[in-house]
Amino acid sequence: MFEFRITSKDNRARGGIFSTPHGDLVTPVFAPVGTQATVKTLTPEHLKGINASLVLSNTYHLYLRPGDELVRDMGGLHKFMQWHNPMLTDSGGFQVFSLSNTRKIDDEGVTFKSHIDGSTHRFTPEKSVQIQENLGADIIMAFDECSDPNDVAYSKIAMQRTHRWAERSLAVKTRGDQALFGIVQGGVNPALREESARFIASLNTPGIAIGGLSVGETKEEMHATLDVVTPILPEGKPRYLMGVGTPEDIINGVARGIDIFDCVLPTRLARHHSAFAPEGRLNMMNATFARDERPIDETCDCYACQTFTRAYIRHLIVAKEMLAATLISIHNLRALIRLMEDIRVYIADGSFESRVPELLDRWSNNAKRKI
Amino acid sequence: MFEFRITSKDNRARGGIFSTPHGDLVTPVFAPVGTQATVKTLTPEHLKGINASLVLSNTYHLYLRPGDELVRDMGGLHKFMQWHNPMLTDSGGFQVFSLSNTRKIDDEGVTFKSHIDGSTHRFTPEKSVQIQENLGADIIMAFDECSDPNDVAYSKIAMQRTHRWAERSLAVKTRGDQALFGIVQGGVNPALREESARFIASLNTPGIAIGGLSVGETKEEMHATLDVVTPILPEGKPRYLMGVGTPEDIINGVARGIDIFDCVLPTRLARHHSAFAPEGRLNMMNATFARDERPIDETCDCYACQTFTRAYIRHLIVAKEMLAATLISIHNLRALIRLMEDIRVYIADGSFESRVPELLDRWSNNAKRKI
Repeated sequence: MFEFRITSKDNRARGGIFSTPHGDLVTPVFAPVGTQATVKTLTPEHLKGINASLVLSNTYHLYLRPGDELVRDMGGLHKFMQWHNPMLTDSGGFQVFSLSNTRKIDDEGVTFKSHIDGSTHRFTPEKSVQIQENLGADIIMAFDECSDPNDVAYSKIAMQRTHRWAERSLAVKTRGDQALFGIVQGGVNPALREESARFIASLNTPGIAIGGLSVGETKEEMHATLDVVTPILPEGKPRYLMGVGTPEDIINGVARGIDIFDCVLPTRLARHHSAFAPEGRLNMMNATFARDERPIDETCDCYACQTFTRAYIRHLIVAKEMLAATLISIHNLRALIRLMEDIRVYIADGSFESRVPELLDRWSNNAKRKI
Repeated sequence: MFEFRITSKDNRARGGIFSTPHGDLVTPVFAPVGTQATVKTLTPEHLKGINASLVLSNTYHLYLRPGDELVRDMGGLHKFMQWHNPMLTDSGGFQVFSLSNTRKIDDEGVTFKSHIDGSTHRFTPEKSVQIQENLGADIIMAFDECSDPNDVAYSKIAMQRTHRWAERSLAVKTRGDQALFGIVQGGVNPALREESARFIASLNTPGIAIGGLSVGETKEEMHATLDVVTPILPEGKPRYLMGVGTPEDIINGVARGIDIFDCVLPTRLARHHSAFAPEGRLNMMNATFARDERPIDETCDCYACQTFTRAYIRHLIVAKEMLAATLISIHNLRALIRLMEDIRVYIADGSFESRVPELLDRWSNNAKRKI
């Protein structure tokens, strides 16, 4: 279990297969986010229809609601949400740091208040692993601390804490059917990132995550950080760039040797009426589309594009009908999953590296709203 | 086209087939309501999955948003919402009377204010037919006036106006591929209902609707009114009881010779977390279900019941996830459509009439919330 086989290489980009208890993941892969044990507005059938393979769920949210012990007693996350393909949970660390403005961090763990009812809770590395074992995802994360990338002194403290917490996470892990990934931190400081990459690599986890990016640093800093980290990581283990990202970030990440991505962007944009399209990111509520008989994207094979016009989707948005979010979510996720499918083909045929400028050019249209 | 063939009879209950340009309707039939050209939270695939056949959409809403001319220009309602089976539109009359508190009725038509932006509009029989021709449903309605059932004097005036409006609606109809139904009114006054049924029957429309019920009268008054009306109506034409209703009303309606029903109840209940179940109508948010591993209804063949536990659906509701409304809508609609399938079998095998008490007993559980 958790064997990672690299099947093709193109410069630093890799195509591979990561075997999990719920099936093989073909990488590079993009994971839709199902924060509360549901990818918002979609059924598992919709996810199968867009060829989703890995789904991420959030430890912090599920711990609070419905509770990890309840999920365990209902047979685990896969059975609870009826997603029988690979799943990944984060450690809750990032959510606790970003969601709670009343958190207190010490060397042992973090005390925080629930965003739901203000009640006080405490996460430690041990607690995070226990929760994630109750949830039962195939890939789980060591508890980590994400620092302000521009604060070097704090980044060092957070990195050191992350290293000790990774050791503690590994020490308490009991289940053999879950792969626990260590997380590289260190802000945007190259020396810290190098130290962290070496340390996390030494733990010999079945995969390695890179945290603390896409949290306010510049694109150049993100790329430079990946350029420091990935060459240090062992070739034969999957690399997961947490919470990233935009289509451009994904293309740039693959080019720097990343294998796994996740981001709420496609579904969050969809709920705000924003759709990926060849001509740029479209605000589907715009009156321009009132009588537009084309699909969102004429080149797309998703259910929404194969079935409905822009005019209909715009009507649903204006009429405040929930189906709008469902249809745009299907399309936006499919657009990113198709990008990953294309990238895998390009890596396999050796054309990825040479196509990066063309891919970036195509997707840079979608960095901001066109309409 | 619009041939109605009665295939079986059981006392006053009838099984039949009504042929439309978008396929044969097997009756008695229950139509899910897609007010704004979408059955809320569901895709057309979901509707096919629950064996829906006829879908109703509302003329008043589509006239205001996105506009009937836009729907016409996009190829009509079937193409716009991608429902390629039979459709029905109401005349807008009931919506105008019930939604607008600033309406003014005269013999020519009704002036009203939009619930969306307060703008002033006017419906006449001619306008209603023109809108419905633009929308393009298979079954359309004459413009009618629904009275307060307990005001006999007003019921008489509204009935007389409804008769003149039915003649005017028929006079301006141009499309041959739409069946325009006249509507019987008359409140709960037997003499008025008898007069109205005779008059509307004399217009020789391909089907006849019964309006003005389920608007505040008692169950006894509804049944007594149907007992007056349906024996007068021609045997060989489908009878549509508008806006009805609850499972009990449907069973009682079929027993009195009704063929077509529609109601927002199953989908509206679903959005308020309420599910039809053998033990009664369940509030799926109730803590009782937090760890309930059973489906909503163990006897149900719908996607929601075949796939998800009550515990998961309750979690989705508590976590405010939209998928909850989708799953309960699928189940509640399927429950009523299954009831209609059962009723058709019972009529065909001659056991319907004798099963009415058992059916009413089973469904009376669902008249109110159990939990």
